Amino acid sequence: MIVEAPYLMFLGDVPDQLAAKTAQGIVDWRPEWCVGQHRLPGCKADLKLPDMSIRQAAEAGVRTLIVGVANAGGVLPDHWSATIVEAIEAGMDVASGLHARLASKPAIAEAALRHNRRLTDVRHSNETFATGKGTKRPGLRLLTVGTDCSVGKKYTALALEKEMRSQGFDADFRATGQTGVFISGRGVAIDAVVADFISGAVEWIAPAAAPNHWDLIEGQGSLFHPSFAGVSLGLLHGAQPDCFVVCHEPTRKTMRGVAHPLPSIREVIELNIRCGQLTNPAIQPVGISVNTEHLSEIEARRLVEALEKEHALPATDPIRFGVGSVVRNMLNLYPQSKAA
Amino acid sequence: MIVEAPYLMFLGDVPDQLAAKTAQGIVDWRPEWCVGQHRLPGCKADLKLPDMSIRQAAEAGVRTLIVGVANAGGVLPDHWSATIVEAIEAGMDVASGLHARLASKPAIAEAALRHNRRLTDVRHSNETFATGKGTKRPGLRLLTVGTDCSVGKKYTALALEKEMRSQGFDADFRATGQTGVFISGRGVAIDAVVADFISGAVEWIAPAAAPNHWDLIEGQGSLFHPSFAGVSLGLLHGAQPDCFVVCHEPTRKTMRGVAHPLPSIREVIELNIRCGQLTNPAIQPVGISVNTEHLSEIEARRLVEALEKEHALPATDPIRFGVGSVVRNMLNLYPQSKAA
Repeated sequence: MIVEAPYLMFLGDVPDQLAAKTAQGIVDWRPEWCVGQHRLPGCKADLKLPDMSIRQAAEAGVRTLIVGVANAGGVLPDHWSATIVEAIEAGMDVASGLHARLASKPAIAEAALRHNRRLTDVRHSNETFATGKGTKRPGLRLLTVGTDCSVGKKYTALALEKEMRSQGFDADFRATGQTGVFISGRGVAIDAVVADFISGAVEWIAPAAAPNHWDLIEGQGSLFHPSFAGVSLGLLHGAQPDCFVVCHEPTRKTMRGVAHPLPSIREVIELNIRCGQLTNPAIQPVGISVNTEHLSEIEARRLVEALEKEHALPATDPIRFGVGSVVRNMLNLYPQSKAA
Repeated sequence: MIVEAPYLMFLGDVPDQLAAKTAQGIVDWRPEWCVGQHRLPGCKADLKLPDMSIRQAAEAGVRTLIVGVANAGGVLPDHWSATIVEAIEAGMDVASGLHARLASKPAIAEAALRHNRRLTDVRHSNETFATGKGTKRPGLRLLTVGTDCSVGKKYTALALEKEMRSQGFDADFRATGQTGVFISGRGVAIDAVVADFISGAVEWIAPAAAPNHWDLIEGQGSLFHPSFAGVSLGLLHGAQPDCFVVCHEPTRKTMRGVAHPLPSIREVIELNIRCGQLTNPAIQPVGISVNTEHLSEIEARRLVEALEKEHALPATDPIRFGVGSVVRNMLNLYPQSKAA
């Protein structure tokens, strides 16, 4: 999936800020792509972007209208269609993170056809991929893996991209989830791909690159999650990472949505190495990323220090302490990659 | 997916016997369900079943017309539609293993709607499953796993079902691939499911059962196959098997479709235990199933004896030597399951 910037953020008339979480994530990480917002009467979300009409946005060069809001049931309300059709008629593509497909509204489907505009439903994959080949391809790759779902894998990969670019590395975030696709303008919601093509889709997401180029690949789920481990393993094999960062939420008692306890960080390291060696024999951990939002500053600092000692790896909370220590370790292990 | 027996096997006008491989597999394992065959002029395949008109088959009580042939490109030739429509009008459901969907032909879609008949495309999944929960459910389960794809996992599970039923076990083959779905009349082509629902679909395929009932679950792929390991891991977690049989083809040099060498049987045992413990801590191997078709009788016998010694497990070729030794081991380890 490819979503072309710059974006106009369409918020509809959602009832609160939380419903615009995806849109907010895009603004946080790609402020330079987000030209404005378009809200309907009654909208209670605000991205602090200039409010724009469709015409103003088109004149400002917007290429894509982003429907980056969550809605009860993921549906597309009928009274949003007119705005979407207006954007298509003004020359924009439309990309949506809703469960309902854009083309399920005949007016939208028909307008897109008439004006030859692209409708992208980020939660659905219409693309057909080859099956994964597992053949080593050039370029360096890092994958964020987890003890569980929703422990900061996307955030960590994006924080690494930002830090590495600021230090002069040639590094790109690679998206495997819907918010990530909007943020990078490219990628696949890997959990929506047909099972046979998981690793093949990841090979497309992170293709052959220059030898010192870094792909920072957003992980999904956990090899230890009974619902989603298949996705995580296909992602690991397709990513064929040179290295990985383990992401963790220390206060969680059971894995998300099920009754299973969390694995230890050591187990996660061992199993990712064991399985990842299939497509990259040199795979190794380079850091630990902990989401310490439920800990005090002192507790957080104690925890990352203890983890560093226990695993002989840099440990950090990207939000509290940044990811400089992880990047230093990467530079130490892959010194040639900075020269690029 | 549910396919109701008895079946009429529709062979179209395929040019050779190989094109009817799926249909032949159904006849081999479920002769009692296969009432007859229907062939168009020029058909070069023959299942050695009575040739029947659609009317004769309907009068004989056939419930489903099975399109169990492979075709160049998996398409549904236009000149097959009339026969399929005739079967629908005679009251039959239709189930197909082609890539092309039955309903892609308007005449077929319209007839099914008008007569309220079910069209099943075994290669496609329209069902929505819950995500896997990983909660232990009652009943005993065996999964066939592999060093590679296409090494006899379906055959081994079916051979175990036949042998166990003949010995009075309460045992059911559970299908995870298209031929298996036709053979068991129920199941899901697991590689066609959306990635997020692999383990959830397997929980549906092999649901809670009586404590001494055996599900013999058809495995797919291999944890060591770089294209399909995600499917295999989701299947392992969803199946939560008490035990597994490792299937192997000893003359294969690289894994199917890729350049990777085959893993050892020991590696396959270790990784399936390591990962399978997540949803069934008591998981253990109970046998090794070797496809020795490319070996002489003497070589085959030497190989299975060597494997038995090396792994302290019964080893066999189900076709050459039967699966009695594996079932004896299962009875030894789960003696209560025979009493059922």
